[in-house]
Amino acid sequence: MRLEHSHSPQAIADRLSAGPSVSYLRDWIYGGIDGLVTTFAIVAGAVGADMSSRVVLILGLAKLIADALSMAAANYTGTKAEHEEYQKIREMEERHVALHPEGEREEVRQIFEAKGFKGQDLDRVVDIITEEQHRWIDTMMAEEHGMPLVNRLPSKAALAVFAAFVLCGSVPLLPYLFGLANAPIYALVMTAVTFFAIGSIRSFWSPRPWWVAGLETLSIGLLAAGAAYAIGDLLKTIV
Amino acid sequence: MRLEHSHSPQAIADRLSAGPSVSYLRDWIYGGIDGLVTTFAIVAGAVGADMSSRVVLILGLAKLIADALSMAAANYTGTKAEHEEYQKIREMEERHVALHPEGEREEVRQIFEAKGFKGQDLDRVVDIITEEQHRWIDTMMAEEHGMPLVNRLPSKAALAVFAAFVLCGSVPLLPYLFGLANAPIYALVMTAVTFFAIGSIRSFWSPRPWWVAGLETLSIGLLAAGAAYAIGDLLKTIV
Repeated sequence: MRLEHSHSPQAIADRLSAGPSVSYLRDWIYGGIDGLVTTFAIVAGAVGADMSSRVVLILGLAKLIADALSMAAANYTGTKAEHEEYQKIREMEERHVALHPEGEREEVRQIFEAKGFKGQDLDRVVDIITEEQHRWIDTMMAEEHGMPLVNRLPSKAALAVFAAFVLCGSVPLLPYLFGLANAPIYALVMTAVTFFAIGSIRSFWSPRPWWVAGLETLSIGLLAAGAAYAIGDLLKTIV
Repeated sequence: MRLEHSHSPQAIADRLSAGPSVSYLRDWIYGGIDGLVTTFAIVAGAVGADMSSRVVLILGLAKLIADALSMAAANYTGTKAEHEEYQKIREMEERHVALHPEGEREEVRQIFEAKGFKGQDLDRVVDIITEEQHRWIDTMMAEEHGMPLVNRLPSKAALAVFAAFVLCGSVPLLPYLFGLANAPIYALVMTAVTFFAIGSIRSFWSPRPWWVAGLETLSIGLLAAGAAYAIGDLLKTIV
């Protein structure tokens, strides 16, 4: 995301030809919160189970890496599915342009009419957009389908989720790594602080104040972590 | 996704005014694969641990629901972060238009120049687009930032991930639910079949043939599930 930039014609041309910047914010947030909730639930579940710090640490690490891999595989495939959906719709539009050019011209006409074009101006804009197939399809993709071509790489999306999951998911394990007394208490406090931190850091990409976003993520995270712990606890009593 | 449609002017107008359809495909794929990998790893991890079907089922269910909740919370927040990023960039563009209208006009000019507009046509299109602030900002969002306004609801994205996670994640538990002999073998076969099914169903939204997408998802899924199992197994020997 580029928040401030120069307005010289050359700077604008450079920026536009570089294309839109690709955001992996969603993947970082997704992986971070899920990693934190999952590992915290393990740590909390171990309370009262009379496990040594070493066992909690090893079980936690195993779960952390296995789940991060699973998330990466799932995000890779999900992001790829999104690309292929774009491709599928694009091929459909290419077919429509070949088979029903008049219908597709009418679509372009209505799109630009809605943008305030009228009479001769509208005729000209439709002529120019439909002059070249690539431009024509680009317009249909962005305006009709709300799908601009953005090169969100599945591999980078997968890597972002994996990194965020491992990074945030390690936090509840740190008190066990250092063999602290009262490790579960430290884990709870550090988990809460990290939820708040994820929220307030993400406020940099949001119009909301840092403490509002921080408190929101803290609430959602603690609710999910509490529910995860409670379900595990409830079902363990059934076993 | 609408693959075929009428080309009458009225049908086009109805379709365009309804806005682009919102896709939750990514969320379904993401949740489905992650749910399947995670639950399969639990079932596989229980092999040789001398657990009863009942215990595997209860542990698996606890994990299934807890992880699905965690994914839903993480996806909700990640999708919301994406919306707020849109809002933040939009407010930045509004500021730029207010402070440097000439620079932003130049951006619109270059965007339409790249689409093949020249001379008087280019002047007219820039005049019309920049006539109204809303239209001007919409153009910058879609063309400069590759961010059209798409109302992907965080609640629906969270629900899709949750549903897909629980649905696909239940599959490896079914042989335990029915108390089948050789439950782990059935679980492995059913997991493989489900990976293939996820891939071939998603080929409906992809230009690739169903069996290619099926085999790809099967490979990725089995790799992730195998790695998740191996890590758990390796670390258990250390404990």
